[in-house]
Amino acid sequence: MKNILIVCGHADYKNSYANKEIMGELKNLLPQAKQRILYDLYPDGKIDIEAEQKALLEADVIVFQYPFNWYDYPYLLKQYFDLVFLYNFAYGSKRKLTGKKLVLSFTLGGSAEDYTKEGDFHMTIPEFLKPQEASAELCGIELCKPVYSFDMTYLPEIMNSARKDDVLSKAAEHAKVLVAELKNLSD
Amino acid sequence: MKNILIVCGHADYKNSYANKEIMGELKNLLPQAKQRILYDLYPDGKIDIEAEQKALLEADVIVFQYPFNWYDYPYLLKQYFDLVFLYNFAYGSKRKLTGKKLVLSFTLGGSAEDYTKEGDFHMTIPEFLKPQEASAELCGIELCKPVYSFDMTYLPEIMNSARKDDVLSKAAEHAKVLVAELKNLSD
Repeated sequence: MKNILIVCGHADYKNSYANKEIMGELKNLLPQAKQRILYDLYPDGKIDIEAEQKALLEADVIVFQYPFNWYDYPYLLKQYFDLVFLYNFAYGSKRKLTGKKLVLSFTLGGSAEDYTKEGDFHMTIPEFLKPQEASAELCGIELCKPVYSFDMTYLPEIMNSARKDDVLSKAAEHAKVLVAELKNLSD
Repeated sequence: MKNILIVCGHADYKNSYANKEIMGELKNLLPQAKQRILYDLYPDGKIDIEAEQKALLEADVIVFQYPFNWYDYPYLLKQYFDLVFLYNFAYGSKRKLTGKKLVLSFTLGGSAEDYTKEGDFHMTIPEFLKPQEASAELCGIELCKPVYSFDMTYLPEIMNSARKDDVLSKAAEHAKVLVAELKNLSD
């Protein structure tokens, strides 16, 4: 199997349910993949650009794992992207990540119906991913089919424990689907 | 004129040319508007959520001023949005910003030709703004016509001073266009 790097960009990881469960499951199912949980690595918010670039260079397949916050990357993942994907590393005539694959793997609070033309948001998931699509293209990175799961918010203050169990079980399922996709890409 | 709040989200404002020039021009042209430059206010990255919410509540028209970084908000502006636009403040049954207007005002490194179907990025500006569009809708905020300028990057290491003059003059023009738009909205 190729080298897989999983970057988790949840900005409040310690209070996460779904993303923490997914990362845990991925550790079991894909122990050889390298995990970088930005929240744990950088409690002071100071990203080690050199270390992150090294991890990217060593990977064949990159996964961004995150909650869809305001239909987009959480700020911590955007910070990582803005600071690490630099000129003549990620783009420019000396770009160095060409040919690598990127999988966006995210959890959504809304339902599948919300993300339809008739739904609450009037837009579909691919319509929200244009910044990521154009970014990958500028870097010469192949943006693969995204993996995402709906109804993944659990708020202990206002939701019961059955909802928590449901979110955790969907998170485990999400990890399995992602791993199957990664095995396809790694063949 | 209505209360105008201008939030500048440049993540490296001290090294900015275009955005700093725009904010300076806006100070001259619209002295009554309230400016919040996140980079200056929060050198440690710790956003004062209460102060930001208060400023938003007092505004009729909100401007986000920023460079288009990777076809999207810079991470500092996303951090502000993620942390300040909270449940039962910005969205939810007790949301408090409904009816306010939001103007996205941004500078782009690419050219107008780049942002066409035939251009380098194969996508037009409105296609990149779907996360912002859906976010405004969820908050009941009216997203107004954006104001943006192309070819606004100046890199002193590799560009000459004529380019710098050109960027600064386009930035001053950008500020004028924005002010005209804000005067329309404030009538």
